[in-house]
Amino acid sequence: MRLPIALVLLCLALAAGAPARADDPNFDKLAAEEAAANAHFGPRTTPGQVIPIPDDVSAALQRVIAAPYGGFDEKPKTPEAWKALVEAANKTAAVNLEKLVEIFDVKVEPATVGGVKAFWITPKEVPEQHRDRLVIALHGGGYVFFPGLPGAGEGVMMAGFGGFKVLAVDYRMPPDFPFPAAVDDAVAVWKEVVKTTKPQNIALVGSSAGGGLVLATVLRLKDEGLPLPGAVAAGTPWSDLAKIGDSYFANAWLDNVLVSYEPMLEGMARLYAGGENLRNPYLSPIYGDFTGFPPTILTTGTRDLFLSNTVRAHRALKRAGAVADLEVYEGESHAQFLAGPGVPESKEAFADIAAFFDRHLGK
Amino acid sequence: MRLPIALVLLCLALAAGAPARADDPNFDKLAAEEAAANAHFGPRTTPGQVIPIPDDVSAALQRVIAAPYGGFDEKPKTPEAWKALVEAANKTAAVNLEKLVEIFDVKVEPATVGGVKAFWITPKEVPEQHRDRLVIALHGGGYVFFPGLPGAGEGVMMAGFGGFKVLAVDYRMPPDFPFPAAVDDAVAVWKEVVKTTKPQNIALVGSSAGGGLVLATVLRLKDEGLPLPGAVAAGTPWSDLAKIGDSYFANAWLDNVLVSYEPMLEGMARLYAGGENLRNPYLSPIYGDFTGFPPTILTTGTRDLFLSNTVRAHRALKRAGAVADLEVYEGESHAQFLAGPGVPESKEAFADIAAFFDRHLGK
Repeated sequence: MRLPIALVLLCLALAAGAPARADDPNFDKLAAEEAAANAHFGPRTTPGQVIPIPDDVSAALQRVIAAPYGGFDEKPKTPEAWKALVEAANKTAAVNLEKLVEIFDVKVEPATVGGVKAFWITPKEVPEQHRDRLVIALHGGGYVFFPGLPGAGEGVMMAGFGGFKVLAVDYRMPPDFPFPAAVDDAVAVWKEVVKTTKPQNIALVGSSAGGGLVLATVLRLKDEGLPLPGAVAAGTPWSDLAKIGDSYFANAWLDNVLVSYEPMLEGMARLYAGGENLRNPYLSPIYGDFTGFPPTILTTGTRDLFLSNTVRAHRALKRAGAVADLEVYEGESHAQFLAGPGVPESKEAFADIAAFFDRHLGK
Repeated sequence: MRLPIALVLLCLALAAGAPARADDPNFDKLAAEEAAANAHFGPRTTPGQVIPIPDDVSAALQRVIAAPYGGFDEKPKTPEAWKALVEAANKTAAVNLEKLVEIFDVKVEPATVGGVKAFWITPKEVPEQHRDRLVIALHGGGYVFFPGLPGAGEGVMMAGFGGFKVLAVDYRMPPDFPFPAAVDDAVAVWKEVVKTTKPQNIALVGSSAGGGLVLATVLRLKDEGLPLPGAVAAGTPWSDLAKIGDSYFANAWLDNVLVSYEPMLEGMARLYAGGENLRNPYLSPIYGDFTGFPPTILTTGTRDLFLSNTVRAHRALKRAGAVADLEVYEGESHAQFLAGPGVPESKEAFADIAAFFDRHLGK
């Protein structure tokens, strides 16, 4: 009963022309209302707020942070509608990918590896110490978006920023191929590449759904007794597909990329899982056993809806005794460390990942 | 102009008996309003929310997270009023300290070291590898609170959880002794202890204001060409005393410990700085040069008002080439990793810090 009263009071204050900002003359009233609403044990009540663009990040990142919401509120109701939405998103993504390839001047060649579609991405120059190394990239997009070449963006950045040869996997996705097709494809690719490259010389990289898929894939490799990669980079991994994790709530409406768990994330989780229990560790790797996991670097931002997904995975890795580095970028929403070569903080994040790989991969 | 309209719309929705929760039937309306309010480049607008108690943390931590606001909204107006508030806070803190000493069964002895008041804290058993090691603890409390024995809590936990001999420094504080008294005292203690203990065998630990003080002290040691400690633990350091940093805004009213920058943090920053520019690196170490800094571990929580203070310091350290580990605990507000022996996540945080010290300190 506390909540509605506090909110009504807040509304009266607002209706009287007093916006709820911590730095305005009505602060005392706001403080009193919030103190009353939060005077007992229970859920936290927070007021409507205006969060300024942070002034302690680069100008380029400020533009990323200030950007309007992405299209979070469409939820296709049929397989055909999903496919149409994926196709529309891929048009924009294809343009971005083309630009990235041009900027980094990398070579991109389609291939089939272990029966799975993929792209070899070769940087203009591969430094001596990376000659016998390989990065396998599993793209993000909620296990639904970015089939084909448009999904290779993170791989292109890994090649361009880090000087690694990259294999970007175009794994199968729903509606046609739900779970476990994506994990199956990643494992099939792995089995093939370790025939010619030492596993300890190979890193796995992926963000968002790709980050979850990277963790799930290593859990599968462990369970099947296969050799493990030498290092892993899980960017803001979707480690719990269910709405479990504090930042799903606390960073809702603040994260301008994912915005809210409902309706899109919920929809993609269901579409991908296809009826499988979301606590299956190959779907939600947070429920897996991380004992013996390779060194892993995790990257997120303070506004990320997946902040909890990331820090929970980090802690699970550390509890299991793994080497695990956590990088959290000021003010960034979901996966904005992938913003690209125009944003200094993006370059910094890839430099961190490349240095981590260099430290832990075999040569 | 967008903001007030969106808030008025939200208020109308609320006044109609529809609380703004992401999981209620009025979600579509809320989503449409927020999408409209966030459809252009600019600050972010977030609605009033109810953030549930996270269900992915220990039951003991849930009680800590669910607790009502601390007393954030008192701001003394005279030196006498500050002293009265400090005295009142110390009464509770003294009881807690006594309990901690009993639980961990450590020996606490008052001393004067380098002319500065302090407490030697000796654990019941000091493991072999810690025999020639020492941890210097600089307490938190906004540079104003917890003079005397009540400030030794983090030192007691470091001794009890980690098996280290600890020197807890009772540095001078305002209103009587503003900046730079605290830094001067920390440096004086350092100069004295390195006469008998190798600097590379000594760690500095502190949280909140203590975390800021730890960073500031090492910056001073660097500038004075003094030997540096072997490792540093800065828990949720107050690295920027001004209201700069995204989480000062984004986590306001969510953090149940600090709650809001105004009025207490602002008041303590001014009282401590005593007119000095807040960008002085010995006040706000984020503006310091971290080149050559010792290995540092930083700890915070996803709800921490100082989340940005912590991740900014972490990035500054990494950019300067320092070894820097970041630990972020799910759902925790400011400094709740210090909750104590009853909370598993607190034990985990101290185990992390102890392991980090063990890895980086000389023997």
